[in-house]
Parts: sequence; structure tokens; C-alpha cells
Amino acid sequence: MPQLRKDPVTNRWIIVNVENPKGAAELRVPPMERSSKVCPFCPGNESMTPPEIAAYGRRGNRPGPDWLVRVIPNKFPALRIEETPDKTAIGIYDKMGGFGAHEVIIETPAHDHDLSELPVEHVELVLRAYRDRCIDLKKDPRFKYVLIFKNYGASAGASLEHPHSQLIALPIVPSRVTGEVKGAARHSEYSDRCVYCDVLDQDAKPRKFTVEERGGFVSFAPFASRFPFETWIFPRAHRSSFDAIPDESLRPLAEILKSTLQRLRGALGEAPYNFMIHTLPPQGRDDGTYHWHIEIIPQLTQVAGFELGTGFYVNPTPPELAAKLLRDQEPKG
Amino acid sequence: MPQLRKDPVTNRWIIVNVENPKGAAELRVPPMERSSKVCPFCPGNESMTPPEIAAYGRRGNRPGPDWLVRVIPNKFPALRIEETPDKTAIGIYDKMGGFGAHEVIIETPAHDHDLSELPVEHVELVLRAYRDRCIDLKKDPRFKYVLIFKNYGASAGASLEHPHSQLIALPIVPSRVTGEVKGAARHSEYSDRCVYCDVLDQDAKPRKFTVEERGGFVSFAPFASRFPFETWIFPRAHRSSFDAIPDESLRPLAEILKSTLQRLRGALGEAPYNFMIHTLPPQGRDDGTYHWHIEIIPQLTQVAGFELGTGFYVNPTPPELAAKLLRDQEPKG
Repeated sequence: MPQLRKDPVTNRWIIVNVENPKGAAELRVPPMERSSKVCPFCPGNESMTPPEIAAYGRRGNRPGPDWLVRVIPNKFPALRIEETPDKTAIGIYDKMGGFGAHEVIIETPAHDHDLSELPVEHVELVLRAYRDRCIDLKKDPRFKYVLIFKNYGASAGASLEHPHSQLIALPIVPSRVTGEVKGAARHSEYSDRCVYCDVLDQDAKPRKFTVEERGGFVSFAPFASRFPFETWIFPRAHRSSFDAIPDESLRPLAEILKSTLQRLRGALGEAPYNFMIHTLPPQGRDDGTYHWHIEIIPQLTQVAGFELGTGFYVNPTPPELAAKLLRDQEPKG
Repeated sequence: MPQLRKDPVTNRWIIVNVENPKGAAELRVPPMERSSKVCPFCPGNESMTPPEIAAYGRRGNRPGPDWLVRVIPNKFPALRIEETPDKTAIGIYDKMGGFGAHEVIIETPAHDHDLSELPVEHVELVLRAYRDRCIDLKKDPRFKYVLIFKNYGASAGASLEHPHSQLIALPIVPSRVTGEVKGAARHSEYSDRCVYCDVLDQDAKPRKFTVEERGGFVSFAPFASRFPFETWIFPRAHRSSFDAIPDESLRPLAEILKSTLQRLRGALGEAPYNFMIHTLPPQGRDDGTYHWHIEIIPQLTQVAGFELGTGFYVNPTPPELAAKLLRDQEPKG
């Protein structure tokens, strides 16, 4: 029996197969093949990348290959700081200079270690790098949004296999972010509550969509998941901006991120995935209605004509089943 | 030099690489591998599919394997006519029965012939089948939208390689359609003109984005193309609904569709692609501002974390370059 479900924030509909759902076994993927090319992100090859922006974990202060996390400009940036964000019309069209920033966060010196395999204090360093870069970039008022994201695996868009995340700072607030912020504000207008807090509260008992709650964070399978095993991580308390996260919350966030990625890997093997941090735009007024979170999306299905034509998604795995299968996984800690 | 461009209808931004653009040679794909499985869509295997809804091109009236185009219900439907479109709330969530229709249009008896390789009078039959099914389904007022789409190639979502298109009738107007209809209405509010007509008029001289104009139709590379070699086909005169197309326009539409697919194949090889017919929702009031069209999207790039997080697309091929490269192709007619 197919079912249509609506996301309470974005009003996006999905079609979910609740009758013959696909479980983890049918979606599980084999280990990735490794390439033997020289890797510009490996220690010792620092000169192959543009000059370093920041590094974490070096014992001394001298530049060298003993870093744990390294931030560099993207060698092939989608947007560039040298451009000007000038808007011009060409008749009916609008264009703008390709102003922005595009950075790479190299997560570890170890070429073959995914984030889920790193020690939790190392994952914490990666999150610290994310936060610090957001704080630094939001000082420039020309940046209207900073997106942190990760592509893992070639079919999830990663062109290099060495574990890395990316950051793009944009001169415009993206439509998807505006849509979420507006959706949350709309809910708050009639309820005076945060829609994401309501979603988490509704699942407090019995826990149908919750994967795990620990250290003030929750990992959660959204009711209208677009993709099988889509999992979001929220701070349990209402917080609007990722970059306002205090030092003492970085460790518990690292713990739940690592544990969630481990659960996904346990269920799905080395499935390609993307994750994106959704946060309030830095220049916007904080009316207290938005709630930052991380969206993790395993790439197991094809987006095709139906999705492109409608914006609907067809999800073969009900999120309540995904949540159960992920709860059943035993993270290694 | 990267450039940001905004779509005048949807306000969707893209980033386009105008400095080191990727041409056709860098995107060209090798011929597809063919499977040797028994094909349920091949003539003689009619009993492997659900009972036929319609067939075109049979010499007699008796069911048999001598059809040219055949319409059947999808054996694994995303939505089903037996469900009821009842809306229910579960606390904060909304759900709805999976009511709808999901049909397959088998385009030809020939297993190995893509639409671009069929005689033009055969392509016309396919388009006639599309139109007839839309007209038939819109009689049921519970259907709020009928989407015709095609997935060609496994990485564009086709699970069977025999040439086919699909139709999904939905109990809700999809957000992407609403967005376009509203965007067109917004433009018309201040200009009293159709935004799509304006787009076509602006390219009348010199022709920068136009690929071809023939028989009252235009194929066109949109200014803010999300994907390399994205190409849209419009009726040159203002028309809101695909299913209102008169018999005499089916042949010229078949001609430009075939010719555009041939140009794409000439430039890109057997590239996987999707196409979708965008049309006014059948139950909506026609305020004369929407203009139906076909969007053809070659699948040559990965949609990854950045696109998922923002709704922005990064396009390595400026549409003006794609249009030129497609104009330079010599269709076989």
C-alpha cells in the first residue's frame, strides 16, 4: 500500500512504500574500490594543495605533515572570493558575479578512514573546524549563507576518495534554506512553538522515528524522508545556529555523528552518502523559530524524471522501519 | 570565471562555469551495455505485463503482437487507483492514501531503438498516446496533475532498457509545478505578458540560446540551465496545456523532439537522460500565464551535498555553448 506523506516544515510530499518496503539487506552495497592515484590530501603532499587556511592537531606551530585536520581553499572552486557580487540584468535575466568561498576540510591524514572510523576526539576536531570556519566567514557581511557538506563515495559526488568535507559561502540565501526558515516560521505563527521541537516531542513515547538520543542530541528518521535511511541529527534543546555551538557540546555532537554513521554503515555497508548542516542564515533576524540540524542522506536510489518533474520523492523504505533497523545496530563506540 | 544566474520563472539560482566550460567531448559517454534478460515489453511477451490500456498502430482490431505503441499499467506502481485520497493527521504530520495512476507507454516493439531512432510518424504515435492518456485521466477530478516523463538509461532511473515512457497521475499538484505556475503568474502580474514567450522573444535575434525552430516549435537551452545540455521544447505560440494540442501539431512536435534527441545523441553519445512534460494542472483556472513545455535533461553530472543543501545547481557547461554545439549537429531527419 503506497502512502503519501507531507513534511511539516517544507510541505514537500513523498510517496513511501509501506507494503513491500525495502530493508537494509536489499539496499546494502559492497565495499568501495580504492584508486591507486597519488592523493593531494595525504600528509607529505601538502604542496599539491592551495595554501592552508587552518590546521588542527599539529604538535608544534610549524607547518608540516603532522596535522590531524586541515582546511584549504578548493583548487577548483565553484565560487571565488576575487569576484564581485554585482547583480546585472540581461533583458529578462538576472546574473551575478560568482563571488563566494569554497573550502575543503581534510578530515584525517588517513586516506582510508571514513569519519565513522575515526576516534571520537578526532571527529570533534572536524566539527570544531566546521564551526570555526563558519564563525570566521560570517564576519564578511557579503556572505549570506555558509553551507557545510560532505560527499562520501563517487556516486555521492566525491571526486577524491580521501575523507573530506566542503564548505561553500554564498552571496545569496539559497531557496531551500529560505523555504525551511519560512516553513518553521509559519508553524510558529499559529502554535508559538518550534516545529522541529514539536517533531521531536511527538516521538518521545513511543519512539518510532528516533534512532538514538545521547548527550543532548537526537538522531532521527524524518516522517517524510525523501531517501531510504535518511537520518537527521538535532540538538535536543532549541538552537537556531550551528556556529553558536559551545565547546562543550562538540564532543557529544561528535559522539552521535560517529555513532549514526556507524549504524548506517552497519546496516548498509559502504554506502555513498551526503550530509549537510542546515542552519539559520547569519545575516537574518533570529525570531527563535528555526532549529539547526544535520541531514544525512545515503545515496541508494536514483533521482529520475518523476522527482525532477514534481519535486516528489519515492522512498522504498518507510522511515519508521529505517529507524528500527538503525536502532538495532550496535555501534562500536 | 564562475557566474551566478537566476531562472526568471522559478527564481532558482545556478552557478555556471563560463571560464573553463566543459564541452560535449568531455561529457560524451560510451554506448550502453545491453542486458540479455527476457524483456516483458517485447512483442510476443504481452502476457508478462498487466492488461493493456491502449495500443496504437495495430492493423486489425484483435489483440496481438502487431502494435507500434502500447500503454499498460505499471506492474510496480508508485500510486494506485484502488487507494482513496483521504487525508489524515498523525499529530503534527499529514498523510494521504497512495491514490493515483501509474502507466507505462511502450514506445516501440523494437527493443534497441531509442525515440530518436524511430521514424517521425512513429514518434508522433507516442506523443498521441501521451495526449490521449492525459485527456482520459483528467476526466477524473480526483487527479490534480498528470506527469508524463521518460527515464532513458539505468543511471537516469530506467529499470528496463526497452524504450518506454511513464505517466503518473497525482492527487496533489506537485510543488515544482505550483512553483512554476506561480512564477509565471508573478511575471504576468507586472508585465501582462507570458514569461516563457518573453524568454523566446528575447532570443529572436541574435539566437544565442535557441537550438532550433521548426513547425511552430522551438528547442532552447535555458539561461539558468541546472544541467549541462539541458534543453527545453516550447510551442512558439502561447499554449498552456499539452493535452490541448491539436492533431495537426503532433507531427511537427514529433519532428522537433526527434531532431533534438538526435542532436543530443550526436553531441553526447548514448547519454542517459530524463524528459518531463510541464503543463498546466487540469483542475486549475487558466489565467493565460503558463506555457507548456518539455524539459530534456541529460544525466551527466552528480547531484550531491551542495545541490541537496541549497537547491543551487553547479553547471559546467554554459547553455549558450550547449546551444551552439547542438546547433552544429546535423540531424539525420
